[in-house]
Amino acid sequence: MPNFSIGVDLGGTNLRIAAVNQQGDLMEKVTLGTRVALGKDHVIGEMCDAIRVLAAKYGSSFALQGIGIGVPGIIDMKTGMLRESPNLPGWAETPVRAEIERLLGTRVILENDANVAALGEKWLGAARDVDDMAMLTLGTGVGGGIVLQGRIWHGMTGMAGEFGHMTVEPEGPQCGCGNRGCVEQYASATAVVRMAKEAIASGRAPGLAKAASSDPEFSSKAIYNLAIQGDAEAKKIFGRVGRALGICIANLVNAFNLNMYVIGGGASSAWEAFSPFIFQELRQRSLVYAATAPASPLSGGGASGRLGPEGSTKTIITLALLGSDAGLYGAAQLPLTSN
Amino acid sequence: MPNFSIGVDLGGTNLRIAAVNQQGDLMEKVTLGTRVALGKDHVIGEMCDAIRVLAAKYGSSFALQGIGIGVPGIIDMKTGMLRESPNLPGWAETPVRAEIERLLGTRVILENDANVAALGEKWLGAARDVDDMAMLTLGTGVGGGIVLQGRIWHGMTGMAGEFGHMTVEPEGPQCGCGNRGCVEQYASATAVVRMAKEAIASGRAPGLAKAASSDPEFSSKAIYNLAIQGDAEAKKIFGRVGRALGICIANLVNAFNLNMYVIGGGASSAWEAFSPFIFQELRQRSLVYAATAPASPLSGGGASGRLGPEGSTKTIITLALLGSDAGLYGAAQLPLTSN
Repeated sequence: MPNFSIGVDLGGTNLRIAAVNQQGDLMEKVTLGTRVALGKDHVIGEMCDAIRVLAAKYGSSFALQGIGIGVPGIIDMKTGMLRESPNLPGWAETPVRAEIERLLGTRVILENDANVAALGEKWLGAARDVDDMAMLTLGTGVGGGIVLQGRIWHGMTGMAGEFGHMTVEPEGPQCGCGNRGCVEQYASATAVVRMAKEAIASGRAPGLAKAASSDPEFSSKAIYNLAIQGDAEAKKIFGRVGRALGICIANLVNAFNLNMYVIGGGASSAWEAFSPFIFQELRQRSLVYAATAPASPLSGGGASGRLGPEGSTKTIITLALLGSDAGLYGAAQLPLTSN
Repeated sequence: MPNFSIGVDLGGTNLRIAAVNQQGDLMEKVTLGTRVALGKDHVIGEMCDAIRVLAAKYGSSFALQGIGIGVPGIIDMKTGMLRESPNLPGWAETPVRAEIERLLGTRVILENDANVAALGEKWLGAARDVDDMAMLTLGTGVGGGIVLQGRIWHGMTGMAGEFGHMTVEPEGPQCGCGNRGCVEQYASATAVVRMAKEAIASGRAPGLAKAASSDPEFSSKAIYNLAIQGDAEAKKIFGRVGRALGICIANLVNAFNLNMYVIGGGASSAWEAFSPFIFQELRQRSLVYAATAPASPLSGGGASGRLGPEGSTKTIITLALLGSDAGLYGAAQLPLTSN
């Protein structure tokens, strides 16, 4: 009987559950709102109900290998305790894995959401042809995950991959983490909006000011739209996004010499506006990149998205391929590979 | 019969060769000048003569496992070609490993010098109780090496560990690598002297000016001596050294969450003057460090230099223990572990 698993992406907004087979085919996906306000037990109950339905439906023709769950927060991998989780109030310091295992009677693997996104891109997405990769997830904040030799690199205490809090400008804007000039202060959706508001306040950004006054939800997407229409101030903002990402990735390339760095998350849809600045910084700031850059920054992956034969010795910086499903696939892969 | 190996530290100045047993005991060490000017074949010939003497002397009571050689340069690990080696003119793009193997008729492993230093500290030095560590080597430049799960992390093309060229100040001094504000522009012996000369030229450093005029070899050591005697400008220079190292290590801690970061190399003898600034930056700039710092920065290793029981979940930043022998031990370990 072929294997399958159930992957869960437990976000602060959506709860998504999917049955995925050993080859990475998504057999069925269920999307629920995460009714965080109703509390942990309610959310876990809804999740377990959906898991049971999928397990019963596919369990007759496939062998269930387990449940993988991506969670926004810091997880103690040994105990399955959720240590910190700002987007899931009331969940911190609870034995989430044990509670779910008890309800389901099945093996459960908890994993950080940025880590499962990286693993998903490695399994089925942009990094499927490489063994060693890192992923930066640009959203409200900037998260990250590392995959070495095909497996998530957790580090000593499960905190590896905090790329969003690497310093790119020692005297830059104050960050909530206590540092100044973190990547997250330039390359998150939140930072894009903040930089736009700063430009508006300075009086030198009439285009942005007009867009902001007519759009109550003035978002990073609206600012991106202005940038691709040629608005100079909006373009400048994405220049700062790309510069910060470029400094950060140049540091990662110099330190770890990985094969691929994948950029995903909602704010990565502005790739066209910020990516030229990433490559500009990389060429200047990384001797390792200079020695290993593909002939064209994008030549590592062709139209098919697959690495060419030279790709295995080139440093590839590329956009994620799986969109918001990366974490779901990565979560599903956990029980399929850790047997 | 117990095992032994021969480790070689092939520097631009000295050539050191040692017989080391499986337990890491140094049985004999030979130090020769590296007569680089006489050419590659001459240096390799001298090295092979010394290796043969040690192999014959210890080969009757120990089984020789091979020869490990630390080389300053970039090595193609597959082919054993030395790709680049600024300190060994005329050696680049030559099949060094094959030449030595042919002369000796024994298995030879070539490895980058900063990598073997890291491996030496991991085997027998400051990091002997941890599995995952990075080492920064402060000398004329700043080198680095990474050990993950007890083995050197080479990265995709053997270029991992270029910590000296990580950006800490995006608009800082120009570096030879093409970047600005590299760690090496603040934390190398060369940078310490440059910063002192800049302070002298500005007219605000009478103590440094006096020392420089009376000392034709005005070195980073002389500047350190002034700093510990209380000279304000000399102290400021080591503040900049520590700040740059602190930003760099904070970035590494946030990205990779390793157990230990070891600082070695000749210029690390100024530890007392610069290390407080490392810890100051770390506390501010790394949320991962804040969550994993030992109660006192130095409490991870006691007077014995061994990690306490809590050490395995703490981020330890510490001085190297093996001095200039780190690379020799690391080179010797290569043939002992890769069988």
